[in-house]
Amino acid sequence: MKIRFEPFGVSGQVKQNTTVLQAAIEFGVKIESFCAGRGTCGKCKVIASEGLSAPTVMELKKLTEEELRKGYRLACQAVITSDVVVTVPEESRIAQINILAEGMAQGSVQMEPWVRRHILRVPAATLQNQVADLQNVMRTWNEHHGGELKFTLSALRQLPFALRERDGHIALVLADDQVVHIEAGDGPEHILGIAFDIGTTTVVGYLMDLESGERLAVSSLLNPQTRYGADVVSRILFSIENESGLQILQHEILEALNKIIANTTHAAGVAPENIYGMTVVGNTTMYHLFLGISPAALGRMPYVPAVSATLCLTAKDLGIAIHPEAHIWVLPNIAGWVGADTVGVILATDLPNHEDTALAIDIGTNGEMVMGSRRRLVACSTAAGPAFEGAHLSCGMRAAEGAIDAVSIDGDVRWHTIGESAPKGICGSGLVDLVAEMLRAGIIDARGAMQDGQALRANGQGHLAERILQNGGQREFLLVSSTESAIGRPIKVTQRDVRELQLAKGAIRAGVQILMKELGIGPEEVRRVYLAGAFGNYIRPESALAIGLMPRFPNAKIVPVGNAAGAGARMALLSISARERAARIPDQVEYLELSGRPDFQEEFAEAMLF
Amino acid sequence: MKIRFEPFGVSGQVKQNTTVLQAAIEFGVKIESFCAGRGTCGKCKVIASEGLSAPTVMELKKLTEEELRKGYRLACQAVITSDVVVTVPEESRIAQINILAEGMAQGSVQMEPWVRRHILRVPAATLQNQVADLQNVMRTWNEHHGGELKFTLSALRQLPFALRERDGHIALVLADDQVVHIEAGDGPEHILGIAFDIGTTTVVGYLMDLESGERLAVSSLLNPQTRYGADVVSRILFSIENESGLQILQHEILEALNKIIANTTHAAGVAPENIYGMTVVGNTTMYHLFLGISPAALGRMPYVPAVSATLCLTAKDLGIAIHPEAHIWVLPNIAGWVGADTVGVILATDLPNHEDTALAIDIGTNGEMVMGSRRRLVACSTAAGPAFEGAHLSCGMRAAEGAIDAVSIDGDVRWHTIGESAPKGICGSGLVDLVAEMLRAGIIDARGAMQDGQALRANGQGHLAERILQNGGQREFLLVSSTESAIGRPIKVTQRDVRELQLAKGAIRAGVQILMKELGIGPEEVRRVYLAGAFGNYIRPESALAIGLMPRFPNAKIVPVGNAAGAGARMALLSISARERAARIPDQVEYLELSGRPDFQEEFAEAMLF
Repeated sequence: MKIRFEPFGVSGQVKQNTTVLQAAIEFGVKIESFCAGRGTCGKCKVIASEGLSAPTVMELKKLTEEELRKGYRLACQAVITSDVVVTVPEESRIAQINILAEGMAQGSVQMEPWVRRHILRVPAATLQNQVADLQNVMRTWNEHHGGELKFTLSALRQLPFALRERDGHIALVLADDQVVHIEAGDGPEHILGIAFDIGTTTVVGYLMDLESGERLAVSSLLNPQTRYGADVVSRILFSIENESGLQILQHEILEALNKIIANTTHAAGVAPENIYGMTVVGNTTMYHLFLGISPAALGRMPYVPAVSATLCLTAKDLGIAIHPEAHIWVLPNIAGWVGADTVGVILATDLPNHEDTALAIDIGTNGEMVMGSRRRLVACSTAAGPAFEGAHLSCGMRAAEGAIDAVSIDGDVRWHTIGESAPKGICGSGLVDLVAEMLRAGIIDARGAMQDGQALRANGQGHLAERILQNGGQREFLLVSSTESAIGRPIKVTQRDVRELQLAKGAIRAGVQILMKELGIGPEEVRRVYLAGAFGNYIRPESALAIGLMPRFPNAKIVPVGNAAGAGARMALLSISARERAARIPDQVEYLELSGRPDFQEEFAEAMLF
Repeated sequence: MKIRFEPFGVSGQVKQNTTVLQAAIEFGVKIESFCAGRGTCGKCKVIASEGLSAPTVMELKKLTEEELRKGYRLACQAVITSDVVVTVPEESRIAQINILAEGMAQGSVQMEPWVRRHILRVPAATLQNQVADLQNVMRTWNEHHGGELKFTLSALRQLPFALRERDGHIALVLADDQVVHIEAGDGPEHILGIAFDIGTTTVVGYLMDLESGERLAVSSLLNPQTRYGADVVSRILFSIENESGLQILQHEILEALNKIIANTTHAAGVAPENIYGMTVVGNTTMYHLFLGISPAALGRMPYVPAVSATLCLTAKDLGIAIHPEAHIWVLPNIAGWVGADTVGVILATDLPNHEDTALAIDIGTNGEMVMGSRRRLVACSTAAGPAFEGAHLSCGMRAAEGAIDAVSIDGDVRWHTIGESAPKGICGSGLVDLVAEMLRAGIIDARGAMQDGQALRANGQGHLAERILQNGGQREFLLVSSTESAIGRPIKVTQRDVRELQLAKGAIRAGVQILMKELGIGPEEVRRVYLAGAFGNYIRPESALAIGLMPRFPNAKIVPVGNAAGAGARMALLSISARERAARIPDQVEYLELSGRPDFQEEFAEAMLF
């Protein structure tokens, strides 16, 4: 049977019992899917009037009557029964994402790279001094430097040629104490490195010149694993339930890294073979999937990683398209749900050397937070859920073009979109803004209950009353009418959306409370709050405080630090002592497992209130 | 054009300008060739009456008129001009070789293997004790053993599955301090290792059980590089003169090792994946070719190796078909022409711990010799030439079935062949015997000149006179008539053959003299002479002394030690301290470069005399 995807014009043959989503994956058509095809997220809507199996129970649940009438289907549920043309509406396409790739300011790390070039002039052997090439190089090395050197087999193969090409004038490229490359003359044009932050949603790579410290290029991609599940739990499930699931997920991420390597080296006009060092941060699941180690144990009690250690591998071990002998350092994890990305944040914010108490908080699909000072650091992770990333909401979307990222309700309702284009949905920071404004305007109360039109009118907010709609069992607030929106349907926030946000912010808030309790301090003792990640950078601190995402810290300076995890990866690339500091971080941070604590449940119940 | 090789019935298509030898290599037909196709050795004789280019100058030189009349050609010179049927006579086929693979007696090394199995019972992680799998294993390890462990990436990938399959009951396989394999339960059926001696002519592999120390199987093959040249110099030239010559030679030897691995594991009924450790010895050229490192510098002044160090690699680095993470230890070289095989001999004979002076001498294509005691050891290498291996002689052959390996001239001339079959030629030990007997019978004089029939008759040896033939400018001694021989032609020793032997024995003898001179001792101080290698094992010591291969050592015990190089490789496999002793040997042995010494030339001229 044939399937064609519009408006892309992509088509192909499929076997019996193929779902539309499976076909989309096969032919490279990118359709949103947050639940790994279980029919629970309702994000993979497509339109087709015939050629598909009858709607399933999941579809009847997730699609409105109007949508069903218009031929909307869930791609993961609909099985292809004959030749079919499927339209992917804009809302279901995986969007290009606005990525915060800048991170901390440059210059915060002393250049001390662990990949270095050394030029030697090795005297020729003679009959009277019949020294082997390798021994000869080591003698010359010891005259100038000293210390044991190791050599890769491929460097040994280069040695006899390099040594004779220019009368013993050679360049060694070292990664730590291993010679990974030998060339005649002054050696490669550049000595490069690349630092990666592998996020659940986004992968960012920073191409660095390891001699000047200059950042040559930055490139980011949507993590292609997203098509197998939006969050880490779906991907862990995918890796368990599919025979080569782990290999598929590893392959996807390696491909993405190789694309970023190609993009950045192309942009900078340099050769990928001149990259001799690489660092990687990512959450614990990404760490496992990148290495091809099963993350299954992370997904079930007692939630332990297989491996958390700092690892050093070579590019050829993993199939990374840089110099095959390049060293790849993977920063360590702290615990099952506090990964190397948090290690990157701690490294970049230098928490282990803070005199006063500080809080670093990285909000993505999960919220990881670390609090303390050089005397003691404690960390925890809460399932913030995808609300802050726009998933699981009726009109939620990622922070991409057309996403409403700021809202004010001041007499009238005003909104702002990323890229200033017509609105397609609401992203995390927009939702926080919206709910903060709804609270202020009295549209929702402290328990999160949306008021009806009558109550608003009684409160003198009659102009907003018409925006309150009743849809089946729940109330909705109309933010953008269908004529103003880019998707032909209105953009609304539902009572359930508000509840999702309450769950998310409650989890973060409760985590922060538990950290303070564990340290035995009150909010007045916190002097600095680092907000990491895209969400932390775009959010308006007043709105975050208004909805109670965090307690008010009366003495703290709030510092958005952007992609601090990526900044940490860059630091570990540019400085051996930063890399060594990162390796020590897991021993310096105490992990609090919240799921085992009854006091977390109490704090959580409390923190759900606005 | 088509070519068919008889009596094998192998045929195939060839392109224009292909020589018969190139076609033979392409279709896997094994034809002797000692000169890498330069037309100088005359060993690659084939028979064809038409379909080939006209004989070259080299062929007119190397083939007799009768041979030319019978259609004999040199395979390396004859270019295929039309469809052709080529017969490979028995004398040109590469024979199965009688290999001395036994070496030293077992039990001379204390079992102390560096590949070990460890069984652990790792307690399960809990919510209260959320320890990562790897950390959990390390904790259990440290309770029982202690010391840092490293893990390969593939072992880390095995870890989470192995740990959960049998409630934490796992087996680790360690190579030194690295975990190379993890399995649930008690682990692999066997923990195996393999030791290789890569000779210029022969490759031997010893499959060992690393837990019992038992030798499970031995297998040997002709070094397939032989088809690109019989001696190391031809192979070095081949690696320089052909674009992928080095890769071809490396590929050939790796294939041979893999065949031996397949043969030995099949014979022992075990799995190649259960081989986790391997050791390798070989001469310096073999060391380079095995590793794919150019040996070019060995072939020209000042004759230096690129690398001589002890190396540790993994099976997957080289494509060896055992466990991919198995460790491969390559023993070190001492100098350009004294390689890891000599290190193996020194290790097996334990020279560095000898109280009295000993001499170890390994005669193959080259003669390497080491003399001294625990106070001082000196080594040298002489180009013995291939006479001892049967090459470059008119009727010479390797020590294979049908080779005359012992001769007595006592009234009548008697000979013995390997395998007791009809004689095909003379091997090295046969030649030494023959010349010793010819000397005793007065057929040759102290300068090596063959007497004519008249002189013999005058000496009362008239019955031998008819065996002296005059062929062109030189005298020949008829050993076997054409009716008694297996090749349809007589087997003879020529004046030139005697000269070849004089050169060979002169080089060895002169080397021994220089070693004594360097140590300032006379032959009476030598208490033990180890004769290593196949030649050393088959040779009759009286004959060796009769021709003056060595001085007479009045106080020495002569001990044939067989393949001592291979025995050294086995010791380094079974014992970490033996492996470490081997690594120290290059620092304990002084190398004497003979080519720079005028006194060697004098000794050599003297030692040529009988």
